[in-house]
Amino acid sequence: DHIVVCGWNATARDLIDELRGDEFDARIVVLHESERSPAPADIYFVRGDTTSTEDLERAGIPDAACAIICPSEGSNEADMRSILTVLAIESIAPGVRTVVEVNNRKHAEHVRRANADEILVTSRLASRLLARTALYPGLAALVTDIVSGGEGSELYGVELPEAYVDLDIDGLSARMRRDHGATLLAVTHDGHTLANPPSDFRLRRGDTAVVVAEHLAGLHPLEPDHVLDAPG
Amino acid sequence: DHIVVCGWNATARDLIDELRGDEFDARIVVLHESERSPAPADIYFVRGDTTSTEDLERAGIPDAACAIICPSEGSNEADMRSILTVLAIESIAPGVRTVVEVNNRKHAEHVRRANADEILVTSRLASRLLARTALYPGLAALVTDIVSGGEGSELYGVELPEAYVDLDIDGLSARMRRDHGATLLAVTHDGHTLANPPSDFRLRRGDTAVVVAEHLAGLHPLEPDHVLDAPG
Ligand SMILES: [Ca+2]
Ligand SMILES: [Ca+2]
Repeated sequence: DHIVVCGWNATARDLIDELRGDEFDARIVVLHESERSPAPADIYFVRGDTTSTEDLERAGIPDAACAIICPSEGSNEADMRSILTVLAIESIAPGVRTVVEVNNRKHAEHVRRANADEILVTSRLASRLLARTALYPGLAALVTDIVSGGEGSELYGVELPEAYVDLDIDGLSARMRRDHGATLLAVTHDGHTLANPPSDFRLRRGDTAVVVAEHLAGLHPLEPDHVLDAPG
Repeated sequence: DHIVVCGWNATARDLIDELRGDEFDARIVVLHESERSPAPADIYFVRGDTTSTEDLERAGIPDAACAIICPSEGSNEADMRSILTVLAIESIAPGVRTVVEVNNRKHAEHVRRANADEILVTSRLASRLLARTALYPGLAALVTDIVSGGEGSELYGVELPEAYVDLDIDGLSARMRRDHGATLLAVTHDGHTLANPPSDFRLRRGDTAVVVAEHLAGLHPLEPDHVLDAPG
């Protein structure tokens, strides 16, 4: 049930800090080719090749909850290595959630075909945010704030109580705020996330939500088949 | 009233696509040291040093609405050059909005002291999002979607009608949806953005909002002193 960080770059460095500070205390293993660990001393380090089945097994991939794959440089070759890493992990342990940082947006489709579970094209997110910020001041700071839990708030994915089924979007929004002090950002239905649901929207059984809140409080995080172990 | 992109990297490349496809048809100038333009042929290119007053003037900085500064590589040195670029721009044309992509989060404070108007620490945003995605599936895709205008929606900063003053957050949320088909993400008061306003919140005159919507429709984008020219 640990998290394996495959590869090392600025994102991985910041990621370790985030994961250590997070409300879920996941154990972290770093798998990277360098001779010495690039991570802080208390993080378990395995020297190895992220595309090698054997090295992935040494890092405990079969028992991991999640593998986060970071390209070690900004090149296309680094994306190719990430694809090989995903293929290796998904072939030996398909149940592991593979989360991949991609350099070049053109490679996202290939990463998806390799069966990665989640893909983040950092330059696409950054460029989009810079473009919107050029037009509308403050958007970069706001999005960073929401994602970073600025002002003491955090982004959460949550299950919704049975009692909320059939609520319309205004009703759901008001209930989330009143019952849980949470701001509703989006509803996920059948794996499809709606940031701006149509006016005839009604909550269905099994829909989940993305919220900004100070803490989970009475809300339930996504079910175990979706998510890592909750704090024990 | 044009946008000057200072420096070149993967973010800048994607940024040009975003800005060209955007609802505001801003003219774009790329200022970079390479011999040939790294940008598409129809983008105005000035070969030069982004830290040089003379070259910045050749790129039309004094008349620009906004300068977006991208580090040409992932190094600390590249951040230092960005700081020199901001200092140069803010000294010859403080009215220009300087938006800076920063490599290393430790440099953000220095960039702020150089008077940059907006700062995006890409690795911080990416790492934070990957960390949250490791815990809550789907968050990376959701945030990319919101920022990217996935599902036909876009992120907007907007002024609020006089009639909304004194509304509480549920009231405001419902009105934004009913009157404008827009989902309220946050309210900005006195330059301070609240993604999760307290329950005693009341909208004040001059507050602005960040919303996700298909188009601006009846909403007004942020006033000219905050934003680039609206589409003509
Ligand atoms: Ca998997
Ligand atoms: Ca300025």
